[in-house]
Amino acid sequence: MFSIRTDLAVEAREIYKKSNKREVPGVKVDVEEEKDSIKITTVEIENEVGAKIIGKPVGTYITMEVPKIRHYDADFHDELSKSLAKQLCKIVQLKENQTALIVGLGNWNVTPDSLGPKVVSKLMITRHLKQYMPDQIEEGIYSVCAISPGVLGITGIETAEIIQGIIEKIKPDVLIAIDALSSRKMERVISTIQLGNTGISPGSGVGNKRMELTQNSLGIPVIAIGVPTVVDAATMSNDTIDLMIDTLIEQSKDNKEFYNMLKKVNKEEKYGMIREILNPYIGDLMVTPKEIDSLIEDMSKIIANGINICLHPAIELKDVNRYVH
Amino acid sequence: MFSIRTDLAVEAREIYKKSNKREVPGVKVDVEEEKDSIKITTVEIENEVGAKIIGKPVGTYITMEVPKIRHYDADFHDELSKSLAKQLCKIVQLKENQTALIVGLGNWNVTPDSLGPKVVSKLMITRHLKQYMPDQIEEGIYSVCAISPGVLGITGIETAEIIQGIIEKIKPDVLIAIDALSSRKMERVISTIQLGNTGISPGSGVGNKRMELTQNSLGIPVIAIGVPTVVDAATMSNDTIDLMIDTLIEQSKDNKEFYNMLKKVNKEEKYGMIREILNPYIGDLMVTPKEIDSLIEDMSKIIANGINICLHPAIELKDVNRYVH
Amino acid sequence: MFSIRTDLAVEAREIYKKSNKREVPGVKVDVEEEKDSIKITTVEIENEVGAKIIGKPVGTYITMEVPKIRHYDADFHDELSKSLAKQLCKIVQLKENQTALIVGLGNWNVTPDSLGPKVVSKLMITRHLKQYMPDQIEEGIYSVCAISPGVLGITGIETAEIIQGIIEKIKPDVLIAIDALSSRKMERVISTIQLGNTGISPGSGVGNKRMELTQNSLGIPVIAIGVPTVVDAATMSNDTIDLMIDTLIEQSKDNKEFYNMLKKVNKEEKYGMIREILNPYIGDLMVTPKEIDSLIEDMSKIIANGINICLHPAIELKDVNRYVH
Amino acid sequence: MFSIRTDLAVEAREIYKKSNKREVPGVKVDVEEEKDSIKITTVEIENEVGAKIIGKPVGTYITMEVPKIRHYDADFHDELSKSLAKQLCKIVQLKENQTALIVGLGNWNVTPDSLGPKVVSKLMITRHLKQYMPDQIEEGIYSVCAISPGVLGITGIETAEIIQGIIEKIKPDVLIAIDALSSRKMERVISTIQLGNTGISPGSGVGNKRMELTQNSLGIPVIAIGVPTVVDAATMSNDTIDLMIDTLIEQSKDNKEFYNMLKKVNKEEKYGMIREILNPYIGDLMVTPKEIDSLIEDMSKIIANGINICLHPAIELKDVNRYVH
Repeated sequence: MFSIRTDLAVEAREIYKKSNKREVPGVKVDVEEEKDSIKITTVEIENEVGAKIIGKPVGTYITMEVPKIRHYDADFHDELSKSLAKQLCKIVQLKENQTALIVGLGNWNVTPDSLGPKVVSKLMITRHLKQYMPDQIEEGIYSVCAISPGVLGITGIETAEIIQGIIEKIKPDVLIAIDALSSRKMERVISTIQLGNTGISPGSGVGNKRMELTQNSLGIPVIAIGVPTVVDAATMSNDTIDLMIDTLIEQSKDNKEFYNMLKKVNKEEKYGMIREILNPYIGDLMVTPKEIDSLIEDMSKIIANGINICLHPAIELKDVNRYVH
Repeated sequence: MFSIRTDLAVEAREIYKKSNKREVPGVKVDVEEEKDSIKITTVEIENEVGAKIIGKPVGTYITMEVPKIRHYDADFHDELSKSLAKQLCKIVQLKENQTALIVGLGNWNVTPDSLGPKVVSKLMITRHLKQYMPDQIEEGIYSVCAISPGVLGITGIETAEIIQGIIEKIKPDVLIAIDALSSRKMERVISTIQLGNTGISPGSGVGNKRMELTQNSLGIPVIAIGVPTVVDAATMSNDTIDLMIDTLIEQSKDNKEFYNMLKKVNKEEKYGMIREILNPYIGDLMVTPKEIDSLIEDMSKIIANGINICLHPAIELKDVNRYVH
Repeated sequence: MFSIRTDLAVEAREIYKKSNKREVPGVKVDVEEEKDSIKITTVEIENEVGAKIIGKPVGTYITMEVPKIRHYDADFHDELSKSLAKQLCKIVQLKENQTALIVGLGNWNVTPDSLGPKVVSKLMITRHLKQYMPDQIEEGIYSVCAISPGVLGITGIETAEIIQGIIEKIKPDVLIAIDALSSRKMERVISTIQLGNTGISPGSGVGNKRMELTQNSLGIPVIAIGVPTVVDAATMSNDTIDLMIDTLIEQSKDNKEFYNMLKKVNKEEKYGMIREILNPYIGDLMVTPKEIDSLIEDMSKIIANGINICLHPAIELKDVNRYVH
Repeated sequence: MFSIRTDLAVEAREIYKKSNKREVPGVKVDVEEEKDSIKITTVEIENEVGAKIIGKPVGTYITMEVPKIRHYDADFHDELSKSLAKQLCKIVQLKENQTALIVGLGNWNVTPDSLGPKVVSKLMITRHLKQYMPDQIEEGIYSVCAISPGVLGITGIETAEIIQGIIEKIKPDVLIAIDALSSRKMERVISTIQLGNTGISPGSGVGNKRMELTQNSLGIPVIAIGVPTVVDAATMSNDTIDLMIDTLIEQSKDNKEFYNMLKKVNKEEKYGMIREILNPYIGDLMVTPKEIDSLIEDMSKIIANGINICLHPAIELKDVNRYVH
């Protein structure tokens, strides 16, 4: 039994299933298609066996795969916000008089890591209005506050310390953290959204984050929303090599056995070798789509609206576009 | 005896002195000129009598008046950073093993209110390095961390709550808050820097801030660095009217007495009337220099470098420019 | 007979009408209300008499007054784009095989002067597609290209020279220039849109522009779209003084005659005096709404979509939001 | 004989020299080291034989290799600006009464392609001052103007058409074009500057540029300044594979011959295969350093100051920092 290193539960499950020709034990999977273009996979990790294989704590992981997202279409983006709101509401439901704290993780100076702060900038913030002028707030608008704390290199303070300090002061009932992830597959970049109800553990995300943001460390439920925004350079080289070898095997008659041998080089060993080769650059280099700026802008709006719709039951998308700015 | 409403101690003192032809009681004033172009006025409020007149708590207020600042000259800006560091070090001195938390107040989406966040983005942040790799940090580099918490409308959380939460978590020894102020004089905009050791009280600043950031509320010394970045629209109209009447009196022979009468209209009454007239617009309108974006950029660099030089005794300006980014 | 100095034809006409109690001779005016919240005034200057009074060449000037625009409401903004498209199409109609060049005037580094460049960044640009892959472009999508040339201080080249050079090279059939204007009334700022078919003459706009962009100088029809984004500081002081005097007259019983006398100070003389008083600051200072950044963003989207809908008959707003980015 | 596809003359020469164990015929090469950390290679292509091998027209190509550039050090950056000025002045020298037009190529919305526009924004622009107030301009300050025309997808106009139009209008004596390049080596990214006196030919640069900017097409000398800002994804995979195979050969005793065989796969064929494999992504993906935003910022300042110093003989770096903004 081995643990698969990836930020996405759905990816870990796929890799296991491919090698073992069966479902991960201790894991329940449900797949549904919405409107032809949104594939929603719910991975329910039910016990420690499943948790160990998937490499994530017992809990619920909902992955929305939406290749179409990268072709700009405002109507589809609106649909997606609604669909995201529906999934998000399965794992978080604010009640009257409860408060949600939304945290935009990541570094706003590095475009692919700026998703979280960008989402926060588009949220419908209401906690202060509920507090200072409760009569003027419609029913069904709940108390939401938000912060983008920055990263360790910018503040000199662990993000978890900032979050803990604020939580102890304002006592929210749930925390929703938005984070940019690194993907092992090029086609997932800015086209997959993962929701999870087990928070964020050290080592995830685009930057080198050491914090733990979990119910255990913070005392309140922690929902994580993650989107892959970069590809790991080693992964890209690795995948290219695999594809190249496959092509060589197909095309050649003679050297087939050599290539087959090359192919059999232990996968993890090969990946490790590539990482080592790229090591002087890997901390440095990132692989992103060229239009990363506008893709991040779009995705942050989709997620912000999904959160707005889910947390404020009185709000429909139309209203979100009308009131939020 | 009356209290004078302005963010600047030096302005309040001037107004009093002009009307009363004498120094404010309970206040000690020292003026020095540096390099012909930096006028430094230290207002020491010694007791409650002075405090009531000036409208600020007992403490030290250092005002640097630098009209030349608005003509871009990198060398002069460097001089000014050093001069600011010298003044700042009179009211704050970090010791080995102590930590300073710098807070950039204000809204980064409103250019004239973005001074604080801009300063924070240019600071030399070291707390995490001192913590995780103390051996690699030279002597004389002290522990500095920083945050720009945003404003109430953006976060839904009172700035003071965020700051308190962080302070309780990381226990810094001193807090330095940077804030954009509103000036009553057009010529002060982005050409005056005020340092004070009594923190920030409700109602100051460009935005509508309600927080108190003082030793009383936070438990550690609070240094405030403020710079006027906008002129109050009512003030501008009021000053223009006064200037106009003066001109009319000078020019006319006939109507002199009428104008004199107009001039005698109680000052506060006139100002109140203008505020009322402008009321539908006043929340809305701000008067700024046209080149506000680049002026804020320059000023934030000057202040950040002043802080960097003051807090890290091992650092000279040359090094700041070399290492900080 | 005197000429009234303002960028807005509708303002000049109002001032004349107020003083003279009759319509401007040589001018035809039509007013319509759309959806309760859009007031459209069409000023048709029919001859040189009217032209001299209004201070603008013979031609058509359509002013849309939309106070509601400053309260963000996405649906209303969409309505406004459609309404603008309708008005714009009264003075410009592209034909199959014709090309429109859109020019975004102004300085992108000065927020209130950045309207033009912001509009250009949101246009549906098609000239290159029509040229290189005509088969893939639907019918009713016409040839549109655009540039934001910057201002003299940034390029060292007169804007008119750049535009002339490009026109001689690519031979468009019509030019549409978007410009930020200075208003004499606070309530017009970012809530009035002026369309005109006589181009742009020297001295208009927020910055100190000397160029002429007219059919005369460029050889093709020139449509101008202008929006006031700043208030002149002298105007604001002047208006405040007038309002103050009115208030004083109403309130006082005694000094009424003095105030009346003050009021009678020749209007232009008073304005001139204020300009002189403010002179050291006037080049420098601008009066804008606090939320100028987001207001410019909204207005630029409204205008860009209006142009998109007008120039591409196959396009509806829904499609614009879908395809344009 | 074959032509080597790369934007950098120095790279093409290296590849040839490595394969052929001799200098490229028809090419003269000079290498000098400056201050230990700036390696300057001058490649003089003397005839068509050399031109064909290097894949560039007959002319002078100066490459500055500066690995140290990526570690921020303001003093070193100043040194580099001076060194760049010295090299630039070898191929361009403005005379009294001559005018230089600087063109910032590339798309300001795509960070790695924004180098050109960023340089332009930091230049000392003087043409309008020389024209309108010649008496106020010191001797030794020459006439410089500049524009960032945007890219085809943004304007709908070929960049070359815009440049031609402006040149015909304002008749400059020399054009300097700044462009972001794509590198085949990871270590060159933002650490190599290439100067050339033969302009820019179709197909160069980060974006898909089709324009030709040469003395031939524009009628005036065209100097090109290029900096690699991205790595080609195919190149990165290709290099990784080669490194991996080398490592495998070294480590293994048994399969050596297989790997050797793999290694012998024709280089161009392998690269072609990788491009094909990556094809669905290649238009899309770019590989950049994580800190690309700040690296572009630094590099643009270095180049702008280099140009400022070279074109204005009266100016020293100190003055540039003082007056330019």
